[in-house]
Order: sequence, then structure tokens, then C-alpha cells
Amino acid sequence: MKIAILPGDGIGPEIVAQAVKVLNVLGEKFELETAPVGGAGYAAHGHPLPEGTLALAKAADAVLFGAVGDYQYDKLDRPLRPEQAILGLRKNLGLFANLRPAILYPELAGASTLKPEVVSGLDILIIRELTGDIYFGQPRGVRECPDGPFKGQREGFDTMRYAEGEIRRIAHVAFQAAQKRDKRLTSVDKANVLETFQFWKDIVTDVHKEYPDVALEHMYVDNAAMQLVRAPKKFDVIVTGNMFGDILSDAAAMLTGSIGMLPSASLDANNKGLYEPSHGSAPDIAGKGIANPLATILSAAMMLRFSLNKAEQADRIETAVKQVLAQGLRTADIYEAGTTKVGTEEMGNAVVKAL
Amino acid sequence: MKIAILPGDGIGPEIVAQAVKVLNVLGEKFELETAPVGGAGYAAHGHPLPEGTLALAKAADAVLFGAVGDYQYDKLDRPLRPEQAILGLRKNLGLFANLRPAILYPELAGASTLKPEVVSGLDILIIRELTGDIYFGQPRGVRECPDGPFKGQREGFDTMRYAEGEIRRIAHVAFQAAQKRDKRLTSVDKANVLETFQFWKDIVTDVHKEYPDVALEHMYVDNAAMQLVRAPKKFDVIVTGNMFGDILSDAAAMLTGSIGMLPSASLDANNKGLYEPSHGSAPDIAGKGIANPLATILSAAMMLRFSLNKAEQADRIETAVKQVLAQGLRTADIYEAGTTKVGTEEMGNAVVKAL
Ligand SMILES: CC(C)[C@H](C(=O)O)[C@@H](O)C(=O)O
Ligand SMILES: CC(C)[C@H](C(=O)O)[C@@H](O)C(=O)O
Repeated sequence: MKIAILPGDGIGPEIVAQAVKVLNVLGEKFELETAPVGGAGYAAHGHPLPEGTLALAKAADAVLFGAVGDYQYDKLDRPLRPEQAILGLRKNLGLFANLRPAILYPELAGASTLKPEVVSGLDILIIRELTGDIYFGQPRGVRECPDGPFKGQREGFDTMRYAEGEIRRIAHVAFQAAQKRDKRLTSVDKANVLETFQFWKDIVTDVHKEYPDVALEHMYVDNAAMQLVRAPKKFDVIVTGNMFGDILSDAAAMLTGSIGMLPSASLDANNKGLYEPSHGSAPDIAGKGIANPLATILSAAMMLRFSLNKAEQADRIETAVKQVLAQGLRTADIYEAGTTKVGTEEMGNAVVKAL
Repeated sequence: MKIAILPGDGIGPEIVAQAVKVLNVLGEKFELETAPVGGAGYAAHGHPLPEGTLALAKAADAVLFGAVGDYQYDKLDRPLRPEQAILGLRKNLGLFANLRPAILYPELAGASTLKPEVVSGLDILIIRELTGDIYFGQPRGVRECPDGPFKGQREGFDTMRYAEGEIRRIAHVAFQAAQKRDKRLTSVDKANVLETFQFWKDIVTDVHKEYPDVALEHMYVDNAAMQLVRAPKKFDVIVTGNMFGDILSDAAAMLTGSIGMLPSASLDANNKGLYEPSHGSAPDIAGKGIANPLATILSAAMMLRFSLNKAEQADRIETAVKQVLAQGLRTADIYEAGTTKVGTEEMGNAVVKAL
């Protein structure tokens, strides 16, 4: 089993190192190969997604990804900026299904800005389509405005689009995920305004016929943003497009107050996937040894479960993470009075020990 | 001064009636004329925005709007559905600047799902562009997918777009609003992915040169959704496009837990405007006399301030609303033990009395 390790920028290398340590003590035979990505890719090879890195990711059975982005790359032209690596990997590897759990560990309920009764026990799964929508739709650019009151001026424009097959395949992923959970799916759209999402709603409704055991609800994106704040525990699985999913999955993650704990998986049609923490590269704390490695370690667990067919190993890691939390160990981002503050490496070691 | 009164559907007529009562005791000479809109427009004239209603709105100095939408209109074809009235009014009246305050009244801090220390004293203003973006961009529809892996299938598509002048005028509104407040403006975009919003960011940056006294910050929309949950009080004024504004303004409103208190204004280039509560038509409680009329009454106050040049009258209404809250009067949506539960009409009467 070959795993591509792409640490990236900022805290990426530190947190990925801990996840690698965890993978290495499982007693499995993994072939790990590391390559630079994001700003590190640009620094090494002049491109955020160097050819060799993409080739490695393609050849591997799974990709473990840290995070990309750092101050010194902010002024680069857009095609060279770190985040292009992640868009390029998604598109080139066909990673159309992004799974982002928003889980609040009971020990961390205090970290949330929401009242404990509103969020304790939160366990929702957001499934975001990841290779379509306005992220990749053509045409796009800056042109002369062709009509209307601003005719002749410059205008920026993009194309939102979803083809039937694209909606069907993400809908299947979502219904099947719901079947394994509480059998409730909320499809988030803006069918009252957008043609793309009226079409989305129609197709999801059609796919629903194949999953009569799942309760399907449709919700407008503005209402979904409100309900996430008002009563997040009412959701089970949420499925939506790339753009709305970008916004809602980050909002949902922040409800927990502990985004340093949240993993993510981005899967292709054959369950090959890229796994990364939901948080970013946090350049402000990079190199200080204080970043929380648990989201990356839990991403490695998702990798074992979804791409490497090692569900028991995934369970072992998740149990070990719960144990270190129960022991009261906390990195700075989730620290509270009465617990024990530890650094990135100590936290990684504690998980290894618990295993 | 001519005011078009468009009560609409659901709780619309009940709450607008209270606002009209308030307008009538101010001692001003208003000419009020009522017309049906939304489902009520469809029921009366076969269209959610009947010609006569649009003509009235155009002729008036300001529009006081209730809410639209009710179960029986859900199955109509999209062009006939109630919400088309609101899109039609915005576009036809050129109401490009939507102002949505998210304010948490100290007495209602308990109503929020967020911890009191995170939201008490919240006072942010979201300025949403309202006549452009993917809401109105052409082309849009369902067509045969022209290329890529789904070529030949049906696809839904829409066009996001912003012309230079469109961005400039909303940026001016936002900078000027910030000048009257804490002089901090956050422009929310998705410049790392969308051409439209890289262009948006460039133009807002350019307009900033005319407002050196305002601190401008750029933030990605996904991060903005997180920061609204994490530390909403850090914002002063937020400006963004139509689609992102739809989502963020509803999320921000819900942070307060008292969306029944939040007014909104939608202004044209000459400060003519449409004023409506931020909440919807709530058909489930329509006709029960329990809806909260305060958001509509506060919308009338915004109308007096922005369109009718009667700032003192606006102040009077806002003070009266604070008084009834201080008296402990609460409609069901904001009721807490220890306060006095009142109905729609009693609440309206209490405001009248306080005036
Ligand atoms: C970095 C950016 C392009 C990316 C996105 O918008 O998808 C990020 O926000 C994410 O959610 O992974
Ligand atoms: C009803 C709908 C078309 C409308 C919108 O999306 O603008 C509403 O959500 C709003 O925010 O006023």
C-alpha cells in the first residue's frame, strides 16, 4: 500500500510528521513517499503542484495532505499560489466527494462558542461535491460587459454548472452515507434563484427513489446557514455543491470550536482519496511546535477506513485519540484550565503510546 | 410622502398592520397605499408582482414590505412563485444596496444559541449587493453539457458576474456606512477561486483610496462564515456580493437568536428604498396573532431615516422599542421565563403607547 505524503506549508510538516509516526506503529506495511506541495512545491520546483508530486499522488493508493499557504506566497499570480495545488489535485485525481464530519468531542464542549446544550454530542457529516460547480465552470475571466446598464465596462464573470451525472454520483455517496448513519439527508440548494440548483434538487429527488429508507429534506442554503447556528444537532448528513459546501462545512466545523480536531476525506469513484485536516496552514504558529496534530491523525484514520480497507486500524486510532483527550491532554487551541497543555510532538507521542 | 404598503403572505399582514399603526401616531402626514404582493398578488391578479403593485412601488417614496410565501404557492412554476416578487421589486426599482444590521439587544442575550460573552453587545452591519451577481446573470438555464466527461448530458447552469461600476457603487455605500460607525470594513470575497471576486477585490481596493480613514480588510467567504461563529463582535461593517450576502446575513441574524427583531433596508442610488423584516412569512404561525412585529416596526424606522429624511422619528421608534423590551414584554419567539408574553397586537400597542 503506497501512501503519498504531502506535508505542504505552515504547520503542515509538523502535523503530518505526527500522523506518519502513528501510521508507522500500526504494524502494517505502508510504503510512504513524500513530495513538496503548495508554497513548498513552488519553492522547490516553481509550481505549487510540481509534476513529480502529481505523478506520485496519482500512483499512490491514498494521499495524506497537510496544509498549504504561507505569507511569502500571497503576492504570487493566482496560478502559482499554494491553493492551486489543492484545486489541481482534486481535479486531476477526480476527487469529487468531500466528506467532512463535524463532531464535538464531549471533553471539548467548552471550546465551542455555542451553548453546551446546543452543540454537545454534535455529530453531523457534510458531503460537499468537490470537482464541479463554479469552481471549475467555463467560461470565466474578466471581459467587457456585453449588455445592461454597465455595458462596455470591465466585468468579472464565472460559470456555475452541474451536469446530471455529476449530481447523481454525489447524491449516491450521500444517500449511502446516510444509510450507515441516522438515515436522514438534507440536500442544500438555492433552487428558488439558481437554475443549477433547481436542476440539482430535481436530480437528488430522482435518486432518492433508490433509497426509500432515507428521509430526504431540501433546504435553501441561507436557511441551512441559519439552522446550523440555531439547532445544528437536527442535521444528520448534509449534501451540497462545491461553493455552498465550502461555506457551510467551515461554518459547521467552527460550531465545534475545535477545528483542530476535524479530519476530512476527498474521494474518487473508486474510494481512492486525499485526506487532510479541516484547518489550514496557520503560518502564524508554524515551527513553534504547538499546532494540534489530531485532525491530521484522524485524517489518517479516515484514510485507513475509506481507501486502505483497514477499518480496525482506523478504529484503533480513533480510540487512541479519545483516550488522550480523556487523559486531559490538550494542545493550545483546545486548552482549558484544569487540563494539561502539550505541544505537537507530545500529543503525537501520546497517541502512539495509547496505541 | 407616499408609502407603498405591501403586506404579502403568512404573518406579513399582521406585522405590517402594527408598523402602520406606529406610523400613524407619529404626527406626520403620510399617504399610505396598500397592494397585494407574493402569493397574495398571485391570488388577486395571477402574478406575484402584479402590474399595479409594481406601479405603486415605483410611484412611492418608499415601500414597506411584510413577507412573502405560503404553502399553497409552493408548487407553482418558478416565475409565479411568491419570492419572484421580491426579486422583481429589487431589480425594477434598482435596489442595489441591502443593509442588514445584526444587533443583539442586551435584554435578549439569552435568546442566542451562542454564549453571552461571545454575542452580547453584538452590533454589525452587513451590506449585501442586491441586483447583480449570479442572481440575475445571463445566460442561465438547463442545456446539453457542451464538453468534459458529462458531455451530452443535461446540465443546469448560471452566470456569476459583477461589472466595475456595480462594485464601485456598493463599495461607496459600504465605506460611507463604515465612516459613520467604527470605521472598519470587511470585504468578503472568494478571490482565490472566482474571477468575479478577484475582480471585486481589486475594485474595492481601488475605491478604498477615497476612504483612507476606513480600515479595509479582505476575507474569504468560508473564513467569514467561520469568524461569524467564532468571534462575531470583531466585525463592524461587512460588504459582499448578492449570493454570499444572502448566506452570511442570515447566519449573522441567527447569531442574535432574535431574528424577529431585525429590520432591513434595500436602497437605490437616491435612497429610495424597500424596508422589510429579516425574517420570513412563517406560514405555520400566520393568523394566530403571535408573530413578533418589532422587526417590521424597526424597518419602518429605517425607512424614516434613510428614505423619508425623518431621523428623529426613527430615533423615537427605536427608543420606544427599547422601552417595551425594558418593560419585559416579549412575543413568543423571544419569550423567556420571568418576562411577560404578549401577542402581535399587544406588542404593537405597547410601542404606540411608548411613543
Ligand atoms: C483553498 C481553497 C481553494 C479551498 C476551497 O475553496 O475549496 C479551501 O477553502 C477548502 O475548503 O479546501
Ligand atoms: C426569497 C429569496 C429569493 C431571497 C434571496 O435569496 O435573496 C431571500 O432569501 C432574501 O434573502 O431576501
